[in-house]
Amino acid sequence: MSKAVLYMSMSVDGFIAGPNDGPANGLGDRGHRLHDWFLPDGGDHQNAASHLTGVNRQVMDELMATGAVVVGRRTFEIAGGWNGDHHEGVPIFVLSRRPPDAQLQWPSVTYVDDVTKAMRLANDAAGPKDVLVHGAVTAQLALTAGVLDVLQLHLIPVLLGQGRRLFDDLPPDHTELELLRAEDAPGVLHLRYRVRTAD
Amino acid sequence: MSKAVLYMSMSVDGFIAGPNDGPANGLGDRGHRLHDWFLPDGGDHQNAASHLTGVNRQVMDELMATGAVVVGRRTFEIAGGWNGDHHEGVPIFVLSRRPPDAQLQWPSVTYVDDVTKAMRLANDAAGPKDVLVHGAVTAQLALTAGVLDVLQLHLIPVLLGQGRRLFDDLPPDHTELELLRAEDAPGVLHLRYRVRTAD
Repeated sequence: MSKAVLYMSMSVDGFIAGPNDGPANGLGDRGHRLHDWFLPDGGDHQNAASHLTGVNRQVMDELMATGAVVVGRRTFEIAGGWNGDHHEGVPIFVLSRRPPDAQLQWPSVTYVDDVTKAMRLANDAAGPKDVLVHGAVTAQLALTAGVLDVLQLHLIPVLLGQGRRLFDDLPPDHTELELLRAEDAPGVLHLRYRVRTAD
Repeated sequence: MSKAVLYMSMSVDGFIAGPNDGPANGLGDRGHRLHDWFLPDGGDHQNAASHLTGVNRQVMDELMATGAVVVGRRTFEIAGGWNGDHHEGVPIFVLSRRPPDAQLQWPSVTYVDDVTKAMRLANDAAGPKDVLVHGAVTAQLALTAGVLDVLQLHLIPVLLGQGRRLFDDLPPDHTELELLRAEDAPGVLHLRYRVRTAD
């Protein structure tokens, strides 16, 4: 069955971006360190998989095989909307309560104001494929709404000290996870957890 | 060579205690979940290893083989000072700037006001054995001072949402780690990282 899978690179101290992140500094100060495992020389996401091997390649291939994207407005804008194509031209659902920006509209992009609705639309669009979920705020909203099935964390062996946390501002709920897979690969430990309350 | 090793159970979202932790609620609301892997029925730490098997037993045996303890005042007080004996009667160095509490003094306990000094004393006391480091504030101070060698994290498959973070209030330093070991065991993933700046 189709699943909503959060794919995020996170430092051991829980950050997905360094301090001072913003449009001109997407991953924050030194935050590019978190993407070294698939973009060692910078470059764009779409060609990222080509040089990867082993477990890193497998995880990236799984990501690229997803059939729709649900992403937060902030992450989407910082990425320049990926020019309307995150990967393979799949539909992108942008979570936002504000009207769309004319500069960031493409045929494949739909703005949605509610995470549950976004996930339902993305699931329909993805058919039997999984839905790629991206962004810290979106992850938090999806977890709280009970519409996130899997956390695929790329745990990077670094402490950033400060920055933007993946898990922040969540309610004091106790959410059980189940470790499905832990795979060590060059520069990253891939952890796949099932969200048990999403059963 | 003797190493300073932080042993801490942490949720996937980075908490080592739930909200509202304090003397009467040491691990905070629902924080006992983090210790289920070695204390499924509550009970005390000293007998914790006896029922463990496999990787969980191995990690606990390593902890019990350390030759000294460095711990923060807060953690120490919440634990009632372990009645002066954390394990095997090894020396305990309590990090604090305040004078010792008369109720929490034992022959094996020394109060020290500086993390580097505490670690030096503990290293001397431990001889060839490792030093067990415990507590979030102590971990943060030791990392910042460059006197922590290894992080032994017991990663628990749960999101607590809120509580006390292991990594908080650190300077925006970029500290590289090296994954030495990742071992999945019942109820916990044991991750052992070397702190590379401590070389």
